[in-house]
Amino acid sequence: MNFAQVARLLAGFALFFSVVQCCMIGIAWFEVVENPEFRPVHGFVWGAGVGLAIALGLGLWGRGASHEFFRRESLLVVGLAWFVAGALGGIPFWASGTYGTYADGIFECISGLTTTGASVCGSGDNHAIEDLPRSILLWRSLVQWIGGIGIILVFIVLLPAMGVTGKNLLASEQVGVSNDDIRPSMRLQARSLFRLYVGLTACLALILWIHGHFTGTQTGFDSICHAFTTMATGGFSTNNLSIGGLDSVFVECVLIVFMFLAGSNFVLLSHAIRGRSIGRLFQSAEFKLYLKLVIGLILAVTLILWIEGGTMIDHATTDRDYDDPLRCLRDAAFQVVSIITTTGYGTADFQNWPHAAVMLIFLTMFFGGCTGSTAGGYKILRLFVVGRLLSFTARKFIRPKSVEKLKLDDDVVPNSVVSSILALFVMWVSLTFFGGVALSFVDGLSFSSALSTSLSMMSCVGPAISEVVPTGPGTFETVWPINVGPYGGFGDLPSWAKLVAAFEMVLGRLEILAPIVLFAPGTWRR
Amino acid sequence: MNFAQVARLLAGFALFFSVVQCCMIGIAWFEVVENPEFRPVHGFVWGAGVGLAIALGLGLWGRGASHEFFRRESLLVVGLAWFVAGALGGIPFWASGTYGTYADGIFECISGLTTTGASVCGSGDNHAIEDLPRSILLWRSLVQWIGGIGIILVFIVLLPAMGVTGKNLLASEQVGVSNDDIRPSMRLQARSLFRLYVGLTACLALILWIHGHFTGTQTGFDSICHAFTTMATGGFSTNNLSIGGLDSVFVECVLIVFMFLAGSNFVLLSHAIRGRSIGRLFQSAEFKLYLKLVIGLILAVTLILWIEGGTMIDHATTDRDYDDPLRCLRDAAFQVVSIITTTGYGTADFQNWPHAAVMLIFLTMFFGGCTGSTAGGYKILRLFVVGRLLSFTARKFIRPKSVEKLKLDDDVVPNSVVSSILALFVMWVSLTFFGGVALSFVDGLSFSSALSTSLSMMSCVGPAISEVVPTGPGTFETVWPINVGPYGGFGDLPSWAKLVAAFEMVLGRLEILAPIVLFAPGTWRR
Repeated sequence: MNFAQVARLLAGFALFFSVVQCCMIGIAWFEVVENPEFRPVHGFVWGAGVGLAIALGLGLWGRGASHEFFRRESLLVVGLAWFVAGALGGIPFWASGTYGTYADGIFECISGLTTTGASVCGSGDNHAIEDLPRSILLWRSLVQWIGGIGIILVFIVLLPAMGVTGKNLLASEQVGVSNDDIRPSMRLQARSLFRLYVGLTACLALILWIHGHFTGTQTGFDSICHAFTTMATGGFSTNNLSIGGLDSVFVECVLIVFMFLAGSNFVLLSHAIRGRSIGRLFQSAEFKLYLKLVIGLILAVTLILWIEGGTMIDHATTDRDYDDPLRCLRDAAFQVVSIITTTGYGTADFQNWPHAAVMLIFLTMFFGGCTGSTAGGYKILRLFVVGRLLSFTARKFIRPKSVEKLKLDDDVVPNSVVSSILALFVMWVSLTFFGGVALSFVDGLSFSSALSTSLSMMSCVGPAISEVVPTGPGTFETVWPINVGPYGGFGDLPSWAKLVAAFEMVLGRLEILAPIVLFAPGTWRR
Repeated sequence: MNFAQVARLLAGFALFFSVVQCCMIGIAWFEVVENPEFRPVHGFVWGAGVGLAIALGLGLWGRGASHEFFRRESLLVVGLAWFVAGALGGIPFWASGTYGTYADGIFECISGLTTTGASVCGSGDNHAIEDLPRSILLWRSLVQWIGGIGIILVFIVLLPAMGVTGKNLLASEQVGVSNDDIRPSMRLQARSLFRLYVGLTACLALILWIHGHFTGTQTGFDSICHAFTTMATGGFSTNNLSIGGLDSVFVECVLIVFMFLAGSNFVLLSHAIRGRSIGRLFQSAEFKLYLKLVIGLILAVTLILWIEGGTMIDHATTDRDYDDPLRCLRDAAFQVVSIITTTGYGTADFQNWPHAAVMLIFLTMFFGGCTGSTAGGYKILRLFVVGRLLSFTARKFIRPKSVEKLKLDDDVVPNSVVSSILALFVMWVSLTFFGGVALSFVDGLSFSSALSTSLSMMSCVGPAISEVVPTGPGTFETVWPINVGPYGGFGDLPSWAKLVAAFEMVLGRLEILAPIVLFAPGTWRR
């Protein structure tokens, strides 16, 4: 293991984070903060300072390292980068006096970087979102936006170039490629994806800003933050009630479209845009399944809400009349797209929904978006392969002599890829479950809360599901004191549980196998 | 598809069931039933009569069928047999006036035949267990005992002889074998397993009877019924409070040993007994993992109970002082062994335990016992292969060039077997989840109840887990009205949900793939 080279790359990473925080100092400087407790400038100075010190230390260690770079080094850098960034980016939250503890800061920052969007705001010792200074809110959203483009570059450009993933299927065919060979195509690919990401973000920000300007639903600042966190499928909002607080059909429709785009494969999107042909999207089996699943789940949830829903008094602004099919469709569509793309914005408190709808939301958390998107979760492409394999196994069980091959977009999927996709399924389910066991040691997290929190973290969704009971016609309250639902928060968890949750987010974000290198026996030997 | 041959075999099956019910008429005849509502003789006459009529009809259809018998026919017979038997065996429960509806009867009978042990007694329109006539209680236990030996014969003798399973690994290598060739070895194998099953049952019944005779904990009748349902890993009890009602350390220890044996591979057991060597058991990787899992889970649950438990007022006779480590160990050991072997006897209401312990119990439901046992669940052998595969995948991800083979007891496990084991994992998890979605349409089954009921049915365990809240120091009540826990019952479910649950039991009992033939497009064509 070439530790010096690993240190050198992490130093660059820490430096990048410090520079961004230096810019934030400038922005925070000009902000008028009413609450004397909050000192955002102080927070960012600390963050940037510690970051620079760490960058310097790592840089000195890595000075003169050989440029040779292999598979295990790249996995180690990727695995460590999220933790380093979380530890550095969490400092401003804590040092500015806006968050209760450093654990809260780390949780919030890793939740941002992994584009999870779970927040401690408004619960525990933490202030409500709308009370926070704008510079801190911007930092929250910006961290998410950086995390979004970061994961795309890691999975589409960096890891495949290092021979770690082939076609995003965990093919693991090659070993270390010296990094000089791959730089040109890497740069080209990275630049085109970055442009697409920035373009879509700008486009969304503009639409929201113009709409907000004429209707007064949100300011320019809100629009930019929401654009950042939508394209990252993160889901941090600047509103205490998330998107539900805006109560605008137009905004919801626009966000549904952009969340859906953010959850599709960016390489596919950029091909379709360059070729000016929407038909190209439908040549991909993954995209077709993604669309079908979204539509199917929306219809199913709409139907359940309509049949069983009745009238609910929601935490958001209005009473929900689920006898009105359009209202059902509106809430179902927003929530399903928000969850399947692992964004986690809310316009309704889905944990109060009929149980069958809650179960479907839970399932949707597992699915996640397409490969090569900013979305988390198990990913649609893998679901596709798993689905094919199941029908294949059933057919083969009945007719053992049949000779069939598993195909994806006309290519045969090799056996080793299929079994690693299945192994990932088993790992995902097991780690979700064991994470749930760990979290269930928290007083106040019962079966469904612990399990759904664990899944929500693994899939980088954000909100989870607490057990609720009806307390009157259309009103509900949580059975246990901690509310981890879309209108709750994770601030009431003890610090150790926040760190467990943060660890699960990174594990899920890097699709389990990349961080596994951290625990492999050989990794920490020279 | 040779339907006539299928009909002929099912006719034999129905005939067998009718003959057993005729014997039950004799037993019921001599019973003095105090409650005039209950007419067990009437019930068994109806059951035997309908069974004979169906046997006659099917027999006429199958007269003169060719004796050629292929893979698909055997799968179809096995798949249908459980449903036919459930429909026939459920008649006495209903027609004797002891159970509320025919759906209750079917649920109870399929729960017996699949050795699940979930009961509707004492809930819904059904009487409590101790109010039932003895002949009905005997029928309940007997059905379970028949189901236990039935599944062993199907999986160890019948299906492998038909080329459906190889080494119990779903290898699916051969197609139809004409049944004349395989009869001798089949008979021999079947006879030795049957002897072992009868021997162990008799041994257990004797121990319980003698102990009961001197201590007055249970009658000879109870002992026989408990011996039947222990060896079947079924878990129907003749006591309203299950084994907890006996409150005897001796009985619990004896049952722990026999449940553990019933959950081990019977072929292995019979080899070890014939060779008079306990060491033979430890040559099997599956048995070693089984033992390790049982011990590990017992220790984990004991620790959780001891640290978090405090004093609980249980539904069973005594208050549980979980500050006493021995009490923790006693309850943890019984419950863990009862659940991992999918027996489902209870001595403590585990849904009131600390959440982490409840999560572990839920996990244990999935595991199940060894292959070739009467236990349900995913099975330890498959867990072993899955575990090996995961560490294999992780190693291969880090060092793609490594050449390794997955081994089991010195044999290499072929790729196709590994991928069908993984596919079964995915199917098990998915069907459990979708069953949970279906059951969550029942008013009063929330997230954890619906999901755990579904898993408990798929794994043929019996009790499930309801969400509970503390109502005072050490007392709990269920959040929703339906209690599906160890001291609840399934009688409050609507009839459709009982049928869904019964269907899941058969699906899980036959390990999903055998019943799949019922839904394959080609099956119902001539």
